[in-house]
Amino acid sequence: MASQELSQLRTDIDGVLADFTKARSGALVDIGSELRPVAAAMTEFITDGGKRFRPIFAYLGYLGTGATPRQEILKACTALELVHVCALIHDDVMDGSDTRRNKPAIHKLFQALHDESSYQGNSERFGLASAILLGDLALVWADRLLVESGITREEFVNAQEVFSDMRDELMAGQYLDVLEGALATTSVERSLKVARFKSGKYSIERPLHFGAALAGKAEFNETYSKFGLPLGEAFQLRDDILGVFGDPKVTGKPAGDDIREGKRTVLIAVTMENSTSAERKVVTSALGNQSLSATEVEEIQGIIRSTGALSEVEKLITELTSEAIFTLQQSTVEGRIANVLEEMAIIATQRSV
Amino acid sequence: MASQELSQLRTDIDGVLADFTKARSGALVDIGSELRPVAAAMTEFITDGGKRFRPIFAYLGYLGTGATPRQEILKACTALELVHVCALIHDDVMDGSDTRRNKPAIHKLFQALHDESSYQGNSERFGLASAILLGDLALVWADRLLVESGITREEFVNAQEVFSDMRDELMAGQYLDVLEGALATTSVERSLKVARFKSGKYSIERPLHFGAALAGKAEFNETYSKFGLPLGEAFQLRDDILGVFGDPKVTGKPAGDDIREGKRTVLIAVTMENSTSAERKVVTSALGNQSLSATEVEEIQGIIRSTGALSEVEKLITELTSEAIFTLQQSTVEGRIANVLEEMAIIATQRSV
Repeated sequence: MASQELSQLRTDIDGVLADFTKARSGALVDIGSELRPVAAAMTEFITDGGKRFRPIFAYLGYLGTGATPRQEILKACTALELVHVCALIHDDVMDGSDTRRNKPAIHKLFQALHDESSYQGNSERFGLASAILLGDLALVWADRLLVESGITREEFVNAQEVFSDMRDELMAGQYLDVLEGALATTSVERSLKVARFKSGKYSIERPLHFGAALAGKAEFNETYSKFGLPLGEAFQLRDDILGVFGDPKVTGKPAGDDIREGKRTVLIAVTMENSTSAERKVVTSALGNQSLSATEVEEIQGIIRSTGALSEVEKLITELTSEAIFTLQQSTVEGRIANVLEEMAIIATQRSV
Repeated sequence: MASQELSQLRTDIDGVLADFTKARSGALVDIGSELRPVAAAMTEFITDGGKRFRPIFAYLGYLGTGATPRQEILKACTALELVHVCALIHDDVMDGSDTRRNKPAIHKLFQALHDESSYQGNSERFGLASAILLGDLALVWADRLLVESGITREEFVNAQEVFSDMRDELMAGQYLDVLEGALATTSVERSLKVARFKSGKYSIERPLHFGAALAGKAEFNETYSKFGLPLGEAFQLRDDILGVFGDPKVTGKPAGDDIREGKRTVLIAVTMENSTSAERKVVTSALGNQSLSATEVEEIQGIIRSTGALSEVEKLITELTSEAIFTLQQSTVEGRIANVLEEMAIIATQRSV
C-alpha cells in the first residue's frame, strides 16, 4: 500500500461518511422538517474536509495485525471520525472560535440562522444551544455507525472497551486543556501531559488499539502504544505550532488563533522558560487577548522564534517521530502496513493544516 | 411488586450508580489529580437525587415480558439515567438555568470554582466549557455502563438499535424545543410535537422498548408504544405545569422558571389561544424575560388559571394517563408488572417534582 492506496482509503472513508450522513439526515427530516438546518449543517461539517486521521490509524491498526481488509471494519473505524466531529464542534464553542476550515463554526452558523430568520430571543444563545446539541448528536452517531457497520457481535463487543476509554480520555484531556488555559502559570511538564491526553492517546494510540481490538489481537497494543504515544505527542506539537504560525488560508483559522484563545501549549511553555522577564510580560498579556492585532501576533511569533522555542519544539517533533518509526521497524506489524504507518507518521507531523 | 418493591428498585438503581461513579471517579483521578473537581461534580450530580424514571421504566419493560429479574439487566437499564444526566447538564447550559435541585447547575459550579481559585480568563466561559465536557462525559459513561453491565453479547447487540434511536430523538427533540422558544408564534400542535419527541418518546416509550429489546421480545413494542406515548406526553405536560406552578422548595428551581426561560409549552400555547389580546400581550412580554419579578410571575399564573388553560391541560393529563392505563389492562404484559407500571403512570403524572 503506497500513497495512492492511502488516498484511496481516505476516499473510502469519505464515502462511508457520505452514505451515513445521507441516511441520518433523512431520519432527522422524518422527525420534522424544522430539523432540515440541523441535517444540512451536520452533513456539511462531516463530509466537507477533515484529515480522517483517526479512522485511517484505526484501519491500519486492524490491517497491521495481518487481518483481512473488510468494508465492515472500515465502517466501524470511521465511527471514530464522528467522535472527533463532536470534539471539534464542542471545542469551537468552548474556545469561542468563530471559524473552522474557513467557514463559520457551528455555533456561529446557527447564530446567523437565528438572525436571518428574525427569531425571538438571543441569537448567540441559540447558536450555543444548537452547537451543544449537534455535537451531542455526532457523539451518538459515532455509536450508531459502529453498531450499523455490519461487524460481527464479537468484533463489536471487543472494540467497546477501547472505544469507552478513548472517549473518557478525550473528555478528560479537553478539561485539562481548558484548565491549563485558566491557570496563571505555564509548565512544560503540565503542557506535555495535556498534549498526551488530549491528542497523543486519542488521535493515534487509541485508534490503533481500536483496530487491534476489532482484529481480536490485543497483543499488538504494546507496539501500538510505543509507536502511537510519541507520535501522538509530536502530532499535537505540530498542531501547537500551526496554531501560532499556520497560514490562515491553509488552516482555515485566523493567524495566531491559539494566542488569542490563551492556549497554554508546550510551545508557549518553552517560550516562557527561555524568555527574559520583559518578553514574558509581552507573551503573558497577549495570551487570551481576543483583540490582538496582526502586528502583535507577529511580535509574539518573533519571541517564540528568537528564544529558540520554535526550534526546540521542532526538534522534539523530529525526535518523537523518529522514536515512533524506530519502534515500528522493530515490530511484528505487517510489513506493507508498517510502511503506510510510517508514511502516516510523516504526514501527521509535517503537515501544514 | 408493590410500592415497597418500587422503592427497592430505586434503591438498587442508586446502588448501581454509586458503584459506577466511584469506579469512574477513580479512573479520572488516575489520569490527573486536577480532575478531582470533575470527579466530585459528576458523583454528586449522578448520585444525589433524580427520579430514576428511565431506568425504572426500562427494567419494568424487561420484566413485563415475563423475563427473569437479573442484576446485569438492571445495570444495563441504569445506563439510561446517565444519558439523562447529559441531557440535564447540557439543558441547564442551553436554558441558562442557574440551579438544579436547589444546588448550582454544573456550569455555575465550575464558574464558582474559577472565581474561588482566581483562575485566569473569563469564569463564565470556564463554567460553560466544563458543563459541556461533563455532559459529554455522562453520555460516554452511559455507553460504558451498558458495556460493563455484564449482559450477554446478544442482549447488548439487541439493545443497541433502540439505544441509538432514543438518543437521536432526544437530541432532535431538544433542538425542536430550543427552536420553539425562538419562534415568535405559539401553536398547540407544534408544542405537542415537541412534548412528544423531547419527552414522550424519550422518557417512557423508548425505555420500555429498551427493556423489551434486552429481553429479546420486540413483540411487546406495540403495547409499550400505546402505553408509553400518551403517558410520556402526560408526563411532559405535568413538567410544563410544574415549570410555572411548581413549589421552588420541592422542584429545586425558582418559581415560574419556564416563563423566564421563554419556554413555549403546551400550557402556554393553550393560554395564548384562550386569551384576550390584552392578556396575550402580557404573556408574550413575560416569556423570556429573565428579570421577571415574583408579582409578575403571579400575574401570568393568574392568566393561565383564569383562561381555563390550566384545567384544560390537567384534563388532558388525566385523559392521556387513562388511555395509557387502559392499554395496559388490555395487554399481555405480565400482571404483577402491569400493576407496577400503572403505579408508575400515576407517579409520573401526579408528581410535584
